Amino acid sequence: MAVMPKTVTPPRGMRDFLPAEKARRERALAVIRETYRVHGFDEIETPVVEDSERLHAGLGGDNEKLAFAVMKRGLTAEDLEAAAASGDSLALADLGLRFDLTVPLARFYASNRGNLPPVFRAVQIAPVWRAERPQKGRYRQFMQCDIDIIGEAGPVAELELLQATLATLDALGLAGCSIRLNDRRILQGLLGSWGVDDPALRERALITLDKLDKIGATGVADELATLGIDRPGIVDEIAELAAADWTIADGGAPAWLDAEAFGDLRALRDALPGASVAFDPTLVRGMGYYTGTIFEIAHPDRGYSLGGGGRYDHMIGRFLGQEVPACGFSIGFERIVDLVELGGEGTHDDVVLVHDRDVDPAVLVGLKSQLVAAGSRVRLERRVKNTRALLERVAADGFSRFAFVSAGLTDAAELEFRPLD
Amino acid sequence: MAVMPKTVTPPRGMRDFLPAEKARRERALAVIRETYRVHGFDEIETPVVEDSERLHAGLGGDNEKLAFAVMKRGLTAEDLEAAAASGDSLALADLGLRFDLTVPLARFYASNRGNLPPVFRAVQIAPVWRAERPQKGRYRQFMQCDIDIIGEAGPVAELELLQATLATLDALGLAGCSIRLNDRRILQGLLGSWGVDDPALRERALITLDKLDKIGATGVADELATLGIDRPGIVDEIAELAAADWTIADGGAPAWLDAEAFGDLRALRDALPGASVAFDPTLVRGMGYYTGTIFEIAHPDRGYSLGGGGRYDHMIGRFLGQEVPACGFSIGFERIVDLVELGGEGTHDDVVLVHDRDVDPAVLVGLKSQLVAAGSRVRLERRVKNTRALLERVAADGFSRFAFVSAGLTDAAELEFRPLD
Repeated sequence: MAVMPKTVTPPRGMRDFLPAEKARRERALAVIRETYRVHGFDEIETPVVEDSERLHAGLGGDNEKLAFAVMKRGLTAEDLEAAAASGDSLALADLGLRFDLTVPLARFYASNRGNLPPVFRAVQIAPVWRAERPQKGRYRQFMQCDIDIIGEAGPVAELELLQATLATLDALGLAGCSIRLNDRRILQGLLGSWGVDDPALRERALITLDKLDKIGATGVADELATLGIDRPGIVDEIAELAAADWTIADGGAPAWLDAEAFGDLRALRDALPGASVAFDPTLVRGMGYYTGTIFEIAHPDRGYSLGGGGRYDHMIGRFLGQEVPACGFSIGFERIVDLVELGGEGTHDDVVLVHDRDVDPAVLVGLKSQLVAAGSRVRLERRVKNTRALLERVAADGFSRFAFVSAGLTDAAELEFRPLD
Repeated sequence: MAVMPKTVTPPRGMRDFLPAEKARRERALAVIRETYRVHGFDEIETPVVEDSERLHAGLGGDNEKLAFAVMKRGLTAEDLEAAAASGDSLALADLGLRFDLTVPLARFYASNRGNLPPVFRAVQIAPVWRAERPQKGRYRQFMQCDIDIIGEAGPVAELELLQATLATLDALGLAGCSIRLNDRRILQGLLGSWGVDDPALRERALITLDKLDKIGATGVADELATLGIDRPGIVDEIAELAAADWTIADGGAPAWLDAEAFGDLRALRDALPGASVAFDPTLVRGMGYYTGTIFEIAHPDRGYSLGGGGRYDHMIGRFLGQEVPACGFSIGFERIVDLVELGGEGTHDDVVLVHDRDVDPAVLVGLKSQLVAAGSRVRLERRVKNTRALLERVAADGFSRFAFVSAGLTDAAELEFRPLD
C-alpha cells in the first residue's frame, strides 16, 4: 500500500465542513428550501456530471473553460496515443462536473418534459464545481440555489422569481434587499444606437460594458475604442447611463431606450410595491444566453451582489429542438450563509451523559435509549480529568444539560441533570 | 455552437429525480438525519472529490477500480505523450470522485483532528460514484448514509451504532429488522484452524467464503481447493458454519472459535434486548480494512441486506500516522427509499390559484403573497380548456384546495376555495 503524504488536506480550493458549520449551512438550506416550496417551486435533482458535449456546447460562457473533466474508463494505449497526436486532452473525457445548474436544468427539461407540467417551477439546491484559481471567498466546489420557471413567456415568471427570492432572503434575516433591473433588449437598443450591429461585436461590447464598476466610464470607452466602437462624447454617454434611474423617460424616452422593454420593467417595479427596485441600464450580467429581463439583488449593508438572473428564452430550445421560454434566479449561497445568523434547532432537549470508565456499555445505551424516547438528543462522554474543558466543549456543541453516570445506575429517572452554559 | 444529440438523457447509469421522487427522498433523508442527530451523531461534509493518491491507496478494495478519475487541468502535449508512452492513463488524473464515504472520513479526521472531540461520532449523508456496469437497482451515482465512531475502542461504539441504526430504520417504518453479527477475529481463527497462515491467502479465502450465499458450501470448497486450501470434510465444515447460531458454544466452544470474540458478540446481543440479533460465522463483508466486529442488517420481508459495517481499527492510522480505533455502519439508502412509505409534509395548506389569461400578473403575485403570509403553499396555474386534467395533476402534486381567479379580484379573502381530491 502507498504511504500517505504527511500533510493531509482536502483537495485544493475545496473545503471540509465540521459539525458546527455543517449545521449552520443545513439550517440555511432548510429555510431556503421551505420558502421556495411554499412559493410553489418543486425541487429536482440531476447527476453531478453531464456528458462533455453538453457541458461544452457554448451555453456556459467562460465557465466552460473551468469545468473539471472526468476521464473515460478503460482508455486504451491507442486512445492515449491519439490524444498525444492531436494534443486534445478533452478527447479523453466523456463527462464533466457541472459548472452551473442552468445547463443541467435545460438538459433535465429536455429529458423529462413529458412528465412535467406546462409551466414548470424548479428549485435546485446543489453543488457546482469550477477549477478557478483558489482565493479568499472563492471555492472550487460551492453550493448554488437556483429557481427557474420554464414555459411561461409573460412577466408573471419574473414576478414570481423576484417575489420568492425576496421572501427567502427575508426568511434568512436579510430583509431590505434591493433589486437592480435591466433588459437585454435595452442593451441591444443602446448598441444599435451606437451603430454596433454585428452580433459577435455586440457580445464583446457587452462584456466590456460589464466592467464599468471596475474600470469606470473612461476605461470602458477606451476598451470599446479598441473594439472599433469609437464615438465622440461616449464617456459622457456611459456616465449618463450609469446615473440613469426610473425618471430617465420622464421628459420623453431617449432615442437609445427600448420603450417597450422599459415599460415592462416599470410594470415589474409597480407589481412589487414593498420592494426597493432600481433601473440600471448598465447592468449586463455575463452570460450570453439572456434574452430579456436581467436582475441582480444586493443587501443594503454589502457592496456585492447576493444573486441574480434573467430571462433566457432560446436556451431550452438548444436541447429540446423546440423553443420554450424560461427565466431563472440564482442566489449566491456561499455569500449568504456567511451573513445570516440562524438560531439552533431548539426542538430537542440536548443532554450529555458523562460516564465513568467502568459503567457497563449496555447500561449506557439503555439510558440513552430511554432519554431519546423521552425526546432528548443524547451524547455519551467518558469522564476525563479535565471535566470543566469537557463541559465547555459540549456546551459549545449546543447541549443544554448534563448528568454524571456511575456504575450501578440503570434508570434514567435517577439521573441528576445540571445545566450547561 | 454544437448541435445537440437527439436523445437527451442523463449520463449512463445515473438518474434525474423529478419533484415527487425528490420530495420522497428528502423526506427519508430528513428522518435519517434527525434520528442520527438525537443519537448524538454530528453531520459533516467533505468535497465530492479526493486526491487520486488517497483514493488509490489500497483502502477501497475493488471499489478503487470503479472510481471516476478527474483529469488534471492544463495538460500539456508532453503530459499526453508521457501517458501514451507509459500507457498509464491515471497519470493524467489528480483527483477522483469518491467511491465510498469511509476513505474521505479517514482523510477528514486526519485533516481536522485538532478541532474534533476525543470520541467523534460522525454522520455523512452524501452521494458516491462507481463506474459499475449499469443494471437494475445499481446506479453510478447513489446516496450513502454512514455513521462512524472514531476514538472509541470499546463495545459501546458498536452498541451506539447498532442502536442508532435500528432506531433510524424504525423511524422510517422499517421496524423488526434483524442483525447478523460476526467478528473478523473469528474468521481469522477459523482460517488458522485450517492451517491458512499467509495473510494474503487469508484475504483470498475470505473473498471465497463471502460467496457462500451464491455458490453454496460445495462451490466454496471447490474454490478454496483451487487456492490450495483442501481438507477432507471441508464441505461439511462449511455447512456447519452456515447453520451455526448462539448455541454453538453451549457444549464447549469448537476449536476454531475465538472464545473472546464470541463472548464480545454475546455481550452485544445481550445489550440490545429488543432486537433480533443472530450470530453468523460465515458473515465476511468484503472490505479488507475490518479488524473486529462486523455486522449486517436486513428487513424480515426482504432477502437482501439494508446495510452493514464493522470495526476498522487500523485505517485512520494510515492517514494520521497514529492508530485510532474506529467503527462504522452504512445503510443502503437506495434500497431503503424504495421500501419506505412516508406521508407528505402536511404542515401547510396547499392551494392552487387557477387564473384567467387576462388577470394582471401584479394581482396574481399579490394574491400569492397574501396566501403565503397566511401559511399556505401556493401554485399559480393558468386556466386551460381541460380544467379537469389540470386539477387532477395538481391534486397528484399534493395540493389540497383550488380557487378560480378572474380579472378584477384582488383580495385573497374573496377567493372561493374548493377541495381537490
